[in-house]
Amino acid sequence: MKAIAPFLFLLSMILFAGPWSPASAAPTGPWPVLPAEAPSPADNPMTPAKIELGKKLFFDPRVSVDGTVSCNSCHNVMEAGDDDRATSVGVHGQRGGRSSPTVFNAAFLSVQFWDGRAANLEEQAKGPVTNSVEMGMKDHTVVMTRLGAIPAYVAEFEAVFGAGGLTIDNFAKAVAAYERTLLTPDSAYDRYIKGDESALSEQQKRGMQTVLESGCIACHNGASFAGAMPMGQGFYQKVPLIPGSAYDAKYDLTSDTGREQATKNPADRNMWRVATWRNVALTAPYFHNGSVATLDEAVRVMAKIQLGKELGDAQVADIVAFLGSLTGKFPQQTMPRLPGVDGKTVVPVDPK
Amino acid sequence: MKAIAPFLFLLSMILFAGPWSPASAAPTGPWPVLPAEAPSPADNPMTPAKIELGKKLFFDPRVSVDGTVSCNSCHNVMEAGDDDRATSVGVHGQRGGRSSPTVFNAAFLSVQFWDGRAANLEEQAKGPVTNSVEMGMKDHTVVMTRLGAIPAYVAEFEAVFGAGGLTIDNFAKAVAAYERTLLTPDSAYDRYIKGDESALSEQQKRGMQTVLESGCIACHNGASFAGAMPMGQGFYQKVPLIPGSAYDAKYDLTSDTGREQATKNPADRNMWRVATWRNVALTAPYFHNGSVATLDEAVRVMAKIQLGKELGDAQVADIVAFLGSLTGKFPQQTMPRLPGVDGKTVVPVDPK
Repeated sequence: MKAIAPFLFLLSMILFAGPWSPASAAPTGPWPVLPAEAPSPADNPMTPAKIELGKKLFFDPRVSVDGTVSCNSCHNVMEAGDDDRATSVGVHGQRGGRSSPTVFNAAFLSVQFWDGRAANLEEQAKGPVTNSVEMGMKDHTVVMTRLGAIPAYVAEFEAVFGAGGLTIDNFAKAVAAYERTLLTPDSAYDRYIKGDESALSEQQKRGMQTVLESGCIACHNGASFAGAMPMGQGFYQKVPLIPGSAYDAKYDLTSDTGREQATKNPADRNMWRVATWRNVALTAPYFHNGSVATLDEAVRVMAKIQLGKELGDAQVADIVAFLGSLTGKFPQQTMPRLPGVDGKTVVPVDPK
Repeated sequence: MKAIAPFLFLLSMILFAGPWSPASAAPTGPWPVLPAEAPSPADNPMTPAKIELGKKLFFDPRVSVDGTVSCNSCHNVMEAGDDDRATSVGVHGQRGGRSSPTVFNAAFLSVQFWDGRAANLEEQAKGPVTNSVEMGMKDHTVVMTRLGAIPAYVAEFEAVFGAGGLTIDNFAKAVAAYERTLLTPDSAYDRYIKGDESALSEQQKRGMQTVLESGCIACHNGASFAGAMPMGQGFYQKVPLIPGSAYDAKYDLTSDTGREQATKNPADRNMWRVATWRNVALTAPYFHNGSVATLDEAVRVMAKIQLGKELGDAQVADIVAFLGSLTGKFPQQTMPRLPGVDGKTVVPVDPK
């Protein structure tokens, strides 16, 4: 029962609050707006130089073993921060088992990765570089040796972090600082909550009421609609919470045991970090394995396997319309210039 | 003997021109500066909207069969317009046999591709999308169907090209228009030619004199140092021009027969479009197969196999220093926003 405690808590909060109205909705209530800035750890304040370095590293394919995969390959910030694929493709054409989550607004998530195995963006950034099916570097030393062969990077790390600044922890700090700029404020939903009644269509307003009444927001709450837990603690839910529907097999929902893979604790079997709704209209396909192709089907499946509800087509359409109102304004960005080495490459000719 | 005719022509021109001096060097002479603008075909004038559409298409990985490879994957404009690899990696981890040439200043090349099989950028842009080891689309219809599933692209093609504008030819025109903005003016060399004596070091000036006296500029001439032939005609050279050195085997210089692959004409065996020197310090590794790792070795090999000269270490260092002066100013660019489709992806779940 522990898993549905947040649901009961929120449900009671909603019931006692009475009928919802925009005028009474404060940013800290069940309908918060996206904050203008993301929180940073005390030991990693954001500075323009650090953000710029992080942007370069985020876009640099040379942090992968064969020089083909950058952070942006799977978390494409020119799209919606993901890669439009079911599962991503890493070095040597390899594929992982989980769908690339969007990097936009990841700064607001309570933990990182689908299974929450990283407490924050700094921890997360150190993972993919040495994952054999993602960037394929042997270890962090190889990553930093590669970057250390590029004098302009060495200088930039030292300018940002001081002498001896070229370390994997600082690599992660720079990338995380850049990622904390990847926010999408000012969605139609946010404008509506701030008082612009015309920002949502009537259908979107109906969908908003439906996600409230159906219980979706028991989990999809907070500024990112991914649970308002304190940073680092993680907000998880079992999927399917109500097993036994035809969807379990159809979308292969249980063979990847989720957080149990990270903790080795059977209590975490099929537990997953709650996914954000921000820009969800643009991050198809859906679910941890990318097995659900469309947003309307994702809504239908979630209602059934998490809430035991069979939604009608009109309800699904209303919810999908509301979710579309969570597409925000993507920041305009300049392209970084990746430093090189005169007269040679740092990528091995035939990387294994 | 036909292959060395341009060499003899230029050599005579140089000899009759007498000793070179910066003051007498006009942009149309043997030491031209990079023009501020690239020429466009009459039927494809550059417009801001067309350039912006072309930039989106250039960065969009969804023009590849599995949604992983964009033009920018191998012609990375955040680096020096190539991918720092010997040969590029396409869809499904496949590798081609030739090194990705830089897209910067490609607008000035007399023909496109290493073997000149495309007369201009428009023709070039239609190739990689359907190359099985590059982007892997079955045919151009599949490419345009994919893009046609994205309403914002359809609208943008029609805004730029008129009703029914979503065609592969217009795809190519837009990409080519964007590529014609990828110029790197204002290198140290260009500033020197324009009269700034201090723009080059003494070593670079010695290197400049050496490439003149050694005969390198018999082929590496014109604004792009890749031959000043009229657009579309192509400027080719046989490599090795003087076969028989140990380099032929060491760097596997003859097994790919170059332009003969495109024309099926034995006279074109081992003929290659002359490569640009612009930004050459940043485009290692070198040669059509990326087999030569460093610029100093590339200089040594070229002198031997094309000019029959064994350069001393000091001469090589001088030439490499001069080539470094051809690194230009890369344009600052904003990232495009790639349009999506609400609630679904256009990339097949399991693309073959």
